[in-house]
Amino acid sequence: MLRLGGGVLTAAEMRTSSASKGESLADTVRVVGGGYADVIVLRHSSEGAARLAAQYSPVPVINAGDGAHEHPTQTLCDLYNLHVERGKIEGLEVVLAGDLKYSRTVHSFVYALARFNANIICVPQPGFEMPEYVVRRLKEEFSVEPLRADVRRLGDLAGSTDAVYLTPQKPHQLSLFTDISDWQVQNVDAVYMTRPQTERFGDEDLSETGYMRLEKQSMQADSLRDAVVMHPLPRRDEIADDIDSDPRSIYFKQAARGVPIRMALLASLLGEIELPRERPVVPREAWPVAVGENPCPNPSCISRTEPRHVTPMFTLHSREPLKAHCAYCSRELVYRFVGCSTSKHYHAPDSKELRKVLPEHLVFLSDEGNAEALAYRPSGH
Amino acid sequence: MLRLGGGVLTAAEMRTSSASKGESLADTVRVVGGGYADVIVLRHSSEGAARLAAQYSPVPVINAGDGAHEHPTQTLCDLYNLHVERGKIEGLEVVLAGDLKYSRTVHSFVYALARFNANIICVPQPGFEMPEYVVRRLKEEFSVEPLRADVRRLGDLAGSTDAVYLTPQKPHQLSLFTDISDWQVQNVDAVYMTRPQTERFGDEDLSETGYMRLEKQSMQADSLRDAVVMHPLPRRDEIADDIDSDPRSIYFKQAARGVPIRMALLASLLGEIELPRERPVVPREAWPVAVGENPCPNPSCISRTEPRHVTPMFTLHSREPLKAHCAYCSRELVYRFVGCSTSKHYHAPDSKELRKVLPEHLVFLSDEGNAEALAYRPSGH
Amino acid sequence: MLRLGGGVLTAAEMRTSSASKGESLADTVRVVGGGYADVIVLRHSSEGAARLAAQYSPVPVINAGDGAHEHPTQTLCDLYNLHVERGKIEGLEVVLAGDLKYSRTVHSFVYALARFNANIICVPQPGFEMPEYVVRRLKEEFSVEPLRADVRRLGDLAGSTDAVYLTPQKPHQLSLFTDISDWQVQNVDAVYMTRPQTERFGDEDLSETGYMRLEKQSMQADSLRDAVVMHPLPRRDEIADDIDSDPRSIYFKQAARGVPIRMALLASLLGEIELPRERPVVPREAWPVAVGENPCPNPSCISRTEPRHVTPMFTLHSREPLKAHCAYCSRELVYRFVGCSTSKHYHAPDSKELRKVLPEHLVFLSDEGNAEALAYRPSGH
Repeated sequence: MLRLGGGVLTAAEMRTSSASKGESLADTVRVVGGGYADVIVLRHSSEGAARLAAQYSPVPVINAGDGAHEHPTQTLCDLYNLHVERGKIEGLEVVLAGDLKYSRTVHSFVYALARFNANIICVPQPGFEMPEYVVRRLKEEFSVEPLRADVRRLGDLAGSTDAVYLTPQKPHQLSLFTDISDWQVQNVDAVYMTRPQTERFGDEDLSETGYMRLEKQSMQADSLRDAVVMHPLPRRDEIADDIDSDPRSIYFKQAARGVPIRMALLASLLGEIELPRERPVVPREAWPVAVGENPCPNPSCISRTEPRHVTPMFTLHSREPLKAHCAYCSRELVYRFVGCSTSKHYHAPDSKELRKVLPEHLVFLSDEGNAEALAYRPSGH
Repeated sequence: MLRLGGGVLTAAEMRTSSASKGESLADTVRVVGGGYADVIVLRHSSEGAARLAAQYSPVPVINAGDGAHEHPTQTLCDLYNLHVERGKIEGLEVVLAGDLKYSRTVHSFVYALARFNANIICVPQPGFEMPEYVVRRLKEEFSVEPLRADVRRLGDLAGSTDAVYLTPQKPHQLSLFTDISDWQVQNVDAVYMTRPQTERFGDEDLSETGYMRLEKQSMQADSLRDAVVMHPLPRRDEIADDIDSDPRSIYFKQAARGVPIRMALLASLLGEIELPRERPVVPREAWPVAVGENPCPNPSCISRTEPRHVTPMFTLHSREPLKAHCAYCSRELVYRFVGCSTSKHYHAPDSKELRKVLPEHLVFLSDEGNAEALAYRPSGH
Repeated sequence: MLRLGGGVLTAAEMRTSSASKGESLADTVRVVGGGYADVIVLRHSSEGAARLAAQYSPVPVINAGDGAHEHPTQTLCDLYNLHVERGKIEGLEVVLAGDLKYSRTVHSFVYALARFNANIICVPQPGFEMPEYVVRRLKEEFSVEPLRADVRRLGDLAGSTDAVYLTPQKPHQLSLFTDISDWQVQNVDAVYMTRPQTERFGDEDLSETGYMRLEKQSMQADSLRDAVVMHPLPRRDEIADDIDSDPRSIYFKQAARGVPIRMALLASLLGEIELPRERPVVPREAWPVAVGENPCPNPSCISRTEPRHVTPMFTLHSREPLKAHCAYCSRELVYRFVGCSTSKHYHAPDSKELRKVLPEHLVFLSDEGNAEALAYRPSGH
């Protein structure tokens, strides 16, 4: 923003801001966006905070990281880096290594890689595998199928870890040149290393095994000869400094490229430049959870951590069985029955009857007791 | 300041500033104002801090809130809002509700409303009534007389609270159309709600009754039909979000209007624009407390909390009886006798003899022991 | 920077920066200097931090204070003040009073005074004398000889303190007009007072005696008639406010003059102006400690506090005996023997044989055990 000639107001320290007096996020963005700022850049510890802010803010909100959920500007930066280094994104082979569970950076990155038809080799720290809900979303939105990956060609980098290959290629395409059941890692284009997100778990979870470490030695495997080494930074010990001078190590360049990317994003949102848009992204429609308790199972979702001014919202992902996600944190909602607020009947999620219920009439019920407390009857009664 | 094209240096975090090394406020403003900044905006937890800063600073100091004392720029913003919404300030009927005891915002606002001949209906949270010293100043400076107000026409908003009506109108004017002893609330122009200033008292002080809460329901009284709802923000729970969308709720607009108001103030102080001044405000003259202890009774006054570089100062408010206020926090000084530093005699505050003593010779004495310790004799001896 | 029209990114609060996620200083400056900032101003609690940063940063690094080591921009400001007030620096008589042990400001200042041929009268708080390593460097680099100073002419200011006179004048010059063994303090040009650096020691170290205090009274000595009073600020109680209004007190002016000095430094580093350089300063060459443990004895040196990305470095100060300093914190290295990494022999530091060893082959050995553990043999075996 400074390089664009603008000014910046920061509120990094919540203790000296209005939040310390008990102000809700919804109020903060209405005030800040109401006359103080032309754009809001929000980094927050709760999943979905940016979406909530966007709902209330009169000015554009940029998600600069919301809990373990997403980190889209880092992903723009990462995609730009891949494009500069490789000339394309489609068809690239990208190793993701380390904490794939808590890293919001990784979560945003994999959706983007899938969207641009790149392939992903997950080499997680044991215990920090890619969350089930991320893999499910990759399947549902991008038809990505996870395959068991044979990582022997990665050498030391993978060790004895079980790896997963995520590819948006259609199975019939894959079958042309590989045995689908055990994908053989080929030449890798990029190794994307991530730090342990210790602010989201206890250090003791790592003490037994120690964390993965990329060293000069790890980059000597044949399959990595042309791979660039990326890292969203900050790093801790997961990249040894003996490969800082390796020409394949681009993590400091990668960070520097975040500046023009974020300048472009800001300039575009402020109407100073127009970015070409091939396919306009239409956000999935969301409806309020009008009746009953919040069905989002994520305790650090903004719909749970923000005490006021937040109505839980959901998006629909399938009709039969009925699958809905929290519109804030993207987690799949948890319920045993689904009711209709007009008929006051409730159904199992895979019931055909639910097809006819309008989204705005859907009611999520945790169990029969919950249904009865809200005066809903079983279907057919 | 940023919108005016200027730059901002902040020192919100005292732990990383020179104050953490034990620097006094007087020194900080002399350094910052001596070459670093063209104007100082000070928010401080002690009453009178801004006045102290102004005394030492080579550049203008804006009081952005000093303890529970005053918050004049918020008041400029609030007056501007009333003027935009109502076209005038004179004669308006303004309800002030909530914590009227600790809110510096309210204290600055009532003096300004009185100055512009608006009427004030105080509907305090029980236990958080307008402080006696504020009411006394309203009487002394603006001839405001507090009347008992009948708040039945306010409905839920007031509940069973005792309310006070503060009006700068002369009693003979009032007697033309009302029974002075029990003022009947008419049509209200604005409801000004304030949060509990919990940073200045213990949460337990509220636990019994809970705090007032403005809801959709509270705004249905006939007398409030045209009233705008104002709040200096941040709010906690004292305004329910079910009236956020009510067109009478202007608190977010109110906050936004603080930007041009503060731009005007800064631009004026920096000599970039000239504001019309009908009546130049001449600050009351202040004298140092040259002899004896600090007679200010307020433990959070800057004359008590700032250990160094502060000489207590007083202003004179009446001669018979002799009444003096702390020049920093505006509280009435507490003393039993007043001496003369040239005659070395002391007198009761209502003594006629004090009339002849020059202000710079006045000495405030807490009791006879104090007088004798300083070698003062009773008058006539 | 703001007055120059630039923008500023701050990371004063480590808790909200990448350092809180475990980022090393070397990484931080590579990221920040890689695309975010055009110049880095670093204030750090470890000695040598600025040098480490400069080693890794792609952009210029300004040392804004590194632990108890140096504070060169304050020194530029102080020299500028002396020059403005006295018209020259050469030959001035400058009293340094207070905590001369932990004050980085003082350490940088004395080297500069010596470089410009000014004389220094050290009047330390007892227990806070100028460190031995500072005096040694003054001797080695500027041929400064410490003399016992007779401070009776300083009156109250010195009290019964033992004082030291540091002068870059040659002994034969001195002998022309004084008895070298007991230097008589003449007319003083400046009294430079410093606060106790309590962040670097326990308050209990001061409790017994209390700290020095400059008062109106202390400035009445004849020798101080024309002396300006300087202080790097913030002050605590070491300068009484009764001399704030004394025309000799220039500490607030001194602070204000830091603005143009720092503007000049920034503008020069950014290539906006060209400063005249009579004698280009060639930094002393430094070599890595390639073998064995870190021989720096300073526990708060950046080479010890920064866990990663730092190789200890040394500079050579004499060949016979061999004396080397830590390139980061400037402390003299501690070792009993010095080896040669090609011959694998080791020698006493004053051995003639060491003269022939190239600096890059020098190995510092704490004792015989250490030598043997690294497979070094005594010289001649």
